[in-house]
Amino acid sequence: MSFMTFFVYIGTIAFAISGGLIGIKKQLDVFGVILLGLTTALAGGVIRDIMLGYIPPTNLADPQYFLVSLLSCIMTILFYEKIKRFNNHMVLFDAIGLASFTAVGANAALMQDYTQPFLVISMGLVTGIGGGVLRDVFVKEIPLVFRKEIYGVASITGSIVLLVTYQTIPTVLSLYLCLFTTFVIRMLAVKWQWNIPVVHRKTSQVK
Amino acid sequence: MSFMTFFVYIGTIAFAISGGLIGIKKQLDVFGVILLGLTTALAGGVIRDIMLGYIPPTNLADPQYFLVSLLSCIMTILFYEKIKRFNNHMVLFDAIGLASFTAVGANAALMQDYTQPFLVISMGLVTGIGGGVLRDVFVKEIPLVFRKEIYGVASITGSIVLLVTYQTIPTVLSLYLCLFTTFVIRMLAVKWQWNIPVVHRKTSQVK
Amino acid sequence: MSFMTFFVYIGTIAFAISGGLIGIKKQLDVFGVILLGLTTALAGGVIRDIMLGYIPPTNLADPQYFLVSLLSCIMTILFYEKIKRFNNHMVLFDAIGLASFTAVGANAALMQDYTQPFLVISMGLVTGIGGGVLRDVFVKEIPLVFRKEIYGVASITGSIVLLVTYQTIPTVLSLYLCLFTTFVIRMLAVKWQWNIPVVHRKTSQVK
Repeated sequence: MSFMTFFVYIGTIAFAISGGLIGIKKQLDVFGVILLGLTTALAGGVIRDIMLGYIPPTNLADPQYFLVSLLSCIMTILFYEKIKRFNNHMVLFDAIGLASFTAVGANAALMQDYTQPFLVISMGLVTGIGGGVLRDVFVKEIPLVFRKEIYGVASITGSIVLLVTYQTIPTVLSLYLCLFTTFVIRMLAVKWQWNIPVVHRKTSQVK
Repeated sequence: MSFMTFFVYIGTIAFAISGGLIGIKKQLDVFGVILLGLTTALAGGVIRDIMLGYIPPTNLADPQYFLVSLLSCIMTILFYEKIKRFNNHMVLFDAIGLASFTAVGANAALMQDYTQPFLVISMGLVTGIGGGVLRDVFVKEIPLVFRKEIYGVASITGSIVLLVTYQTIPTVLSLYLCLFTTFVIRMLAVKWQWNIPVVHRKTSQVK
Repeated sequence: MSFMTFFVYIGTIAFAISGGLIGIKKQLDVFGVILLGLTTALAGGVIRDIMLGYIPPTNLADPQYFLVSLLSCIMTILFYEKIKRFNNHMVLFDAIGLASFTAVGANAALMQDYTQPFLVISMGLVTGIGGGVLRDVFVKEIPLVFRKEIYGVASITGSIVLLVTYQTIPTVLSLYLCLFTTFVIRMLAVKWQWNIPVVHRKTSQVK
């Protein structure tokens, strides 16, 4: 699964940078920026591992993702202006992150022989969005995934593709299909600015 | 314990609707509304299970509560105006939710042979209020349970009744006493607008 | 390790009071003030125990820290004005809390034979700051540790000292060195108002 690992690294970097950028924008100190970046990159996997019984969580026990995240945060601080201008490409890397984290998260459930669809989909989703949700909570924003664009939906669709295919084709192939589906849906949503509609309500009636 | 299960379903529906309603009010998109409703209905039990070592958490492993919550959220979106007018009755269902979640949560500790009172009461409380606390955090509100009315206190009193009685009477009976106590205290608090006093302080001295 | 326990009690009291004070300032009701104080004092250890597989978490299973925290919260409510004037000394006790929680948290990892540095440091940090982070999230503040002064850095440095020394000197001694280092760095930071710099950015470019 070494090619998958490559995508997970790209995702980790993208998530760490996104946390770092928001930390800088919110005027956190250097330590806060790094802590926020690490949280964004690592927390989704930690929560998933806790829910699946991988103790201690892989992202805390194996230092490689921590090191990559730390380096990404430091780079973000040193080259803030440059990375910010790079923002359009960030969407691409973030989509790779969402897609690879979803595949790895859903697979973590399957590897424990948990095949119940809702659980598998949840684990993909928690891994993919958990870090970003915590990032937004820590800087007092309503988490992005609740508000904007096809983000969670891309992850869920990817996991469904995994669930439908993994018993008929090799698991590795199935995981790449999951990654690919999540990535494509997310990128199309960004490109064509798909948004899920907001529920209509008569504003005048609202307290 | 099938009658208890019935109450838990009512509570799950009430919590999912409460999350959905707040999500709509906060202008979340359809996916966000559903995610918030699911969180409100399922997260308390998930956190409790993690703390007690039920892995994976029941609310993720068994799809029935998820399905009921999902349906409730969809209904909330489709019939928003009607359900909103129904709001007075929601307090009743929410109280059933608090009461049944408390009983089930405290019982989950006892079933693992954890009889330490603080742990049993905590598990009742976490199950009863955990989902609502996350719901409020996600939409940037100070969780209701910190601010208003006899909510947590009702859950704690219910669990104390359970602890006092479960060794002398059949556990099922004891659980219903817990449920009943929590429910009655909560409803009386709503009816007579009991509130716990806010701590007095001299405002002028406050920075 | 009874002297360490003494420091942990002081830390627990300091953290419970800090949660209580902020709860009062935020106009929570009496129950909310107590719940916030308990969260501040106990949650860091609970999260650490969940991550390390101590189930149920010690702070929930053993009532002594709960009772000390509860008493501290009640005292804070009864003697609010007096304790508030005592605020300067609170910084001292809070530093003892950070230091002792760090030592105990890092040690909890070592006691499970997890010696991977990032994990040990994380567990010290999560124990030391976890409660405060939740406290701030619940009252809608960006957690202090992200924003101000050498707080997390003191904890991390303490854990590094522990890691460097614990194989060459008796563990107890190593833990006191960790505590001492964390405490001194934190107090010096307060005394000389050390702050980690905020990342520079050109404000005009910010959206």
